Amino acid sequence: MLELSDILDARERVRETARHTPLEYSHTYSKLTGADVRLKLENFQRTGAFKIRGATNRIATLSDAEKDAGVVTASAGNHAQGVALAATRVGVDAKIVMPKHAPNSKVEATQSYGAEVVLDGADYDEAADRAHEIEREDNRTYVHAFDDEYVMAGQGTIGLEILEDCPEVETVVVPIGGGGLISGIATAIKELQPDVRVIGVQAEGASSAAASLDKGERVSLGGVETIADGIATRSLGERTFEIIRERVDEVVTVSDPEIAVALVYLLERSKTLVEGAGAVPLAAVLFEKFDFEADETIVPALCGGNIDLNTLTNVIVRGLVETGRYLKIRTVLKDQPGALEDLLEIFTVHQANIYAIHHDRTSREVEMSDTEVEIELEMRGPEHVDTFLADLRSAGYEVDVLV
Amino acid sequence: MLELSDILDARERVRETARHTPLEYSHTYSKLTGADVRLKLENFQRTGAFKIRGATNRIATLSDAEKDAGVVTASAGNHAQGVALAATRVGVDAKIVMPKHAPNSKVEATQSYGAEVVLDGADYDEAADRAHEIEREDNRTYVHAFDDEYVMAGQGTIGLEILEDCPEVETVVVPIGGGGLISGIATAIKELQPDVRVIGVQAEGASSAAASLDKGERVSLGGVETIADGIATRSLGERTFEIIRERVDEVVTVSDPEIAVALVYLLERSKTLVEGAGAVPLAAVLFEKFDFEADETIVPALCGGNIDLNTLTNVIVRGLVETGRYLKIRTVLKDQPGALEDLLEIFTVHQANIYAIHHDRTSREVEMSDTEVEIELEMRGPEHVDTFLADLRSAGYEVDVLV
Repeated sequence: MLELSDILDARERVRETARHTPLEYSHTYSKLTGADVRLKLENFQRTGAFKIRGATNRIATLSDAEKDAGVVTASAGNHAQGVALAATRVGVDAKIVMPKHAPNSKVEATQSYGAEVVLDGADYDEAADRAHEIEREDNRTYVHAFDDEYVMAGQGTIGLEILEDCPEVETVVVPIGGGGLISGIATAIKELQPDVRVIGVQAEGASSAAASLDKGERVSLGGVETIADGIATRSLGERTFEIIRERVDEVVTVSDPEIAVALVYLLERSKTLVEGAGAVPLAAVLFEKFDFEADETIVPALCGGNIDLNTLTNVIVRGLVETGRYLKIRTVLKDQPGALEDLLEIFTVHQANIYAIHHDRTSREVEMSDTEVEIELEMRGPEHVDTFLADLRSAGYEVDVLV
Repeated sequence: MLELSDILDARERVRETARHTPLEYSHTYSKLTGADVRLKLENFQRTGAFKIRGATNRIATLSDAEKDAGVVTASAGNHAQGVALAATRVGVDAKIVMPKHAPNSKVEATQSYGAEVVLDGADYDEAADRAHEIEREDNRTYVHAFDDEYVMAGQGTIGLEILEDCPEVETVVVPIGGGGLISGIATAIKELQPDVRVIGVQAEGASSAAASLDKGERVSLGGVETIADGIATRSLGERTFEIIRERVDEVVTVSDPEIAVALVYLLERSKTLVEGAGAVPLAAVLFEKFDFEADETIVPALCGGNIDLNTLTNVIVRGLVETGRYLKIRTVLKDQPGALEDLLEIFTVHQANIYAIHHDRTSREVEMSDTEVEIELEMRGPEHVDTFLADLRSAGYEVDVLV
């Protein structure tokens, strides 16, 4: 099983590629949660995620013959970019198999680090099959995304940095996909400071770890569905499951709306962009998914920041809806002059700021004499939404809340 | 005129409130620009902008009697929050006058730092008039947002930090609104390292500095219009104008689309959120608004990160449009089965990824037998857009590009 010494060895190898970013402390989260929250910002890492650490350590430990033969892996995400940069920077040839319909941005980023991208397979599993074929055909080393001790050891260097930068840490909160990140971090922390808690967090729609721990054996999910695509993994690895069972104190889950809220807080208050998976550990703190004391020093490990900007705009809207700051309603007006003005007067009284109005006289769902109107509004929070809707309804409007 | 010694004095006073964040270096910008670009991240500052530095220094230098009487200022932006936190943390009472229609988020943030907010006036000028009335009525000290030597000296501590953290710096790039930030930074830099260039940048829609330098006297603009609201200022201060004239090497301007592109790059590649004004100095580098050498070490001072999330989503779309990654088109189809499918086949061939289709059979602008369709697409860049549009047109479609 993975040992602290593996991680200490990894440290020197990783130092050249991995940015050791300082822990950021935000007063915001102490006001919101009562805890002393410090952020480990792996979204600022090279390639935008912690994966560069594990990949660097794996490649540094190849024999000369293995280096000459090159590496191969399958990934549609951060692991692809981590392996690409870690390999090519030391002159090791890298082939990365990505599913045919992988986003252009990910393909281009991986190529920009110097790897050869092979587009093959309808999904990750088929891409992985092709990568294993290439492993055999080319005699390349397959770099697994998480179930590999060198990879886990590289990720574990994050645990060393947290303990050094924040010796007062009491709880570390880590996202779980395949389990490589938390296996490395928990190994470092439990050997050096066993009293520090390690909490794992999964998305509700991809929670194989909790199921596996309950059952006492690895459970593979039939499907996964979450905005945190970086941890949308069907099962833990064999090695990571054993380590998590032994060294992680608790595993909890968060919902997609909770993830969206945490992502929006990080953007708005900490001015930092994370991907869905990166927001997961803060979501667990904000929504109190585990017990903690007032003033407890908690370090969420924000694992990455690679999020498509169009996805981001959708997540922002979701986060604003969840925090009562965006409201979309539909109502019906008599189709006569002044009807809209009467409605808008109520908005003004409540200082509900209008983003957009869609006014549709041709909808088939309303009487010929009526007109349907959809309105998007900026609100101040859940209470503001509630009193506003109550007033609209008591003025005689039938209101549907759309989001 | 402001001296280095003022800034050295400010340093000790400012240390308690201002975060000294490390300079971040991104390979991205060296690939894009050829320069060695390091980011001074004042968006991570407390209250989300550099203003806390000047406000802290101003308040620390009040006499005991002045502290007892309290301070007042007018601002709808970052200065409000800076003064609020700087004052209340040392027990000084602060009244901040904000225009009546100031965004809720700004009002609430200012109140959350413990200041009393007075909502008065239709715009900034009227709010400032009210603040000066309160200055006289309450015998409070008015804390000017920029035209005050203590305020400028506080901002100048950024210059000291840049020189210490990056002794190899050759050029510093600084946004100009009222000119307080660049006055402080230029004073520190020109006294300590006169060879380091200081470049000022304004938004095209609020470029009083260039006009003032040309004319040799302060010019006040009739109106200002830019997405960089933090620097949407009609004129420089008397003091800041003199300092800029003497100590700033060059003043350039950037357009709103250029600002949007820089903001999107910072978000996507550096995972950091800036407001419009914060993106301005990087925009000047990306769009080569001044001459620089290959490998020149350039530090853009990203002054703040307080941007409304709804504004942000609009700016993101603007940035994607500008970089050829978002396209919205309108075309007309025969209203018959299969017409849309024929069109979509061309999209598939070009791998143009569809975000949304609006299909409107009731538009009054087309023949009864035709149907209008609006389509939003993810594209890979300007060349991709050009070849795609050319192919659509040669297939007989009339295409309007909407954004």
